[in-house]
Amino acid sequence: MTKRVVAFQGEHGAYSEEAIRQNLGDEVETLPCRSFEDLFAVVESGEADLAALPIENSVAGSINRAYDLLLERDLKIWGEMVLHVRHNLMAPPGTTLEDLTQVRSHPQALAQCERYLNQHGLKAVPWYDTAGSAKELAANPEPGVGAIASALAAEIYGLEILDRDIQDLAWNYTRFFLIGHHEPERRDPSKTSLVFATPHTPGALHACLGEFANRGINLTKIESRPRRNRPWHYVFYLDFEGHWQEEHCREALVGLLSKAAFVKLLGSYPAASMPQINNSGQEALLQI
Amino acid sequence: MTKRVVAFQGEHGAYSEEAIRQNLGDEVETLPCRSFEDLFAVVESGEADLAALPIENSVAGSINRAYDLLLERDLKIWGEMVLHVRHNLMAPPGTTLEDLTQVRSHPQALAQCERYLNQHGLKAVPWYDTAGSAKELAANPEPGVGAIASALAAEIYGLEILDRDIQDLAWNYTRFFLIGHHEPERRDPSKTSLVFATPHTPGALHACLGEFANRGINLTKIESRPRRNRPWHYVFYLDFEGHWQEEHCREALVGLLSKAAFVKLLGSYPAASMPQINNSGQEALLQI
Repeated sequence: MTKRVVAFQGEHGAYSEEAIRQNLGDEVETLPCRSFEDLFAVVESGEADLAALPIENSVAGSINRAYDLLLERDLKIWGEMVLHVRHNLMAPPGTTLEDLTQVRSHPQALAQCERYLNQHGLKAVPWYDTAGSAKELAANPEPGVGAIASALAAEIYGLEILDRDIQDLAWNYTRFFLIGHHEPERRDPSKTSLVFATPHTPGALHACLGEFANRGINLTKIESRPRRNRPWHYVFYLDFEGHWQEEHCREALVGLLSKAAFVKLLGSYPAASMPQINNSGQEALLQI
Repeated sequence: MTKRVVAFQGEHGAYSEEAIRQNLGDEVETLPCRSFEDLFAVVESGEADLAALPIENSVAGSINRAYDLLLERDLKIWGEMVLHVRHNLMAPPGTTLEDLTQVRSHPQALAQCERYLNQHGLKAVPWYDTAGSAKELAANPEPGVGAIASALAAEIYGLEILDRDIQDLAWNYTRFFLIGHHEPERRDPSKTSLVFATPHTPGALHACLGEFANRGINLTKIESRPRRNRPWHYVFYLDFEGHWQEEHCREALVGLLSKAAFVKLLGSYPAASMPQINNSGQEALLQI
């Protein structure tokens, strides 16, 4: 049996690939892509079956380009994944933390480890990619130079992890959509994602959201983005709990359709376990 | 009470205005507009309550620009109207058919009367607008010159009708949408119009149409248009019999939503009487 191919953006060892490995195991083959656009292109062409599209990070917020592409292209959401982003400091084998003077990584990863780097007197050197900084360092080791990347990257490129979980905020999660051509098998609890626009009339958004509120449907996300070529018009990205096949969700969808300018149903998919802060203040993965 | 304002494209006396007068009587005020874009703009700004948008002609076919605007803008269809287009030859009072040597009108009207013009040895002179050719002729009469326009235009500009129904094909009907902000009161039989796109996968259109066929919903029109900036992708305009509030239509709409790339519901509205050829070969207006 051929393995399913799942595309991700970045070099091998990227956090996206780590999310794929954690959620889909070794039963899939991964395909690195240069850009978000390429993620859509390889699925559309059939080169990949699915692609892991990062859509929001608990520290950095929503990833606008990913949302824009979900509207522009016509793939469906097959599933969602949540990755606990754990930054690791790594270097070629034999190096110690004391040997290091500078550390390379993607600027966002460097920013998320700023306090740690300052505490250890390490200079931050921006690199195009987290996994790319590990790959390059392994290929051309330089004395005193380390990298910040995923544990998977250290494993792939044969670097030694000198320190784990060096991010300043432990609460660092990235949510991904797995996008593809087909609808997944229904496995409740389900979530549904869609994009809609409202007519440019007062109260239009409120009326659209009422279709969900009046039926007791829980919205888990709403996000607005400017509508292309339409100044001061917006599209809204919505996630709600439930499956489009459920009666109350169907009623809400038809109601929305009757009030909205357009509706693009991105899909219903099994809800991922979401990180929650439990009573003792520690993180735990709870099923919603 | 203030009269409702209904916008139309062209000069006073245009066939669109004739359709408004036949369908909405004298209880509305009409507002001439230069372009289809302006029809949307005056309704969006509140200057007009409704606009009469011609969408197809039984001789010339679908009016693509009108369909494109229905997708681009966010107005709803409030109603439909069907006008029997009856071209009239007119001239300043005192002129006879024998006096005429040339006739002005919009190129499409001239083409629809080609046989008549040839039979009477009249030269066709293209003008920017049918009603505009009548208006200009009334303002600046020239010997031997007539115009082809609506009976309403002859009345408005004080021209005399020298011959009626001079179109080569009697079967000449234009269908209009009345577009506005609000949903009309439900009055069955209803029709519903929508636009949707399919994902670019084999059998996608067939699967989408199956949602209607499987529920015995009658499609009265389907029309494809290239999708903007997406070579070889299409959007489909669909009219079907029924109202979005009816259970089987709601089911079909949710089914379509689950299979389509996006759905834009343009509205449900009372179906207009459609011209039918009856058994004796004569035209009659029958309720569908």
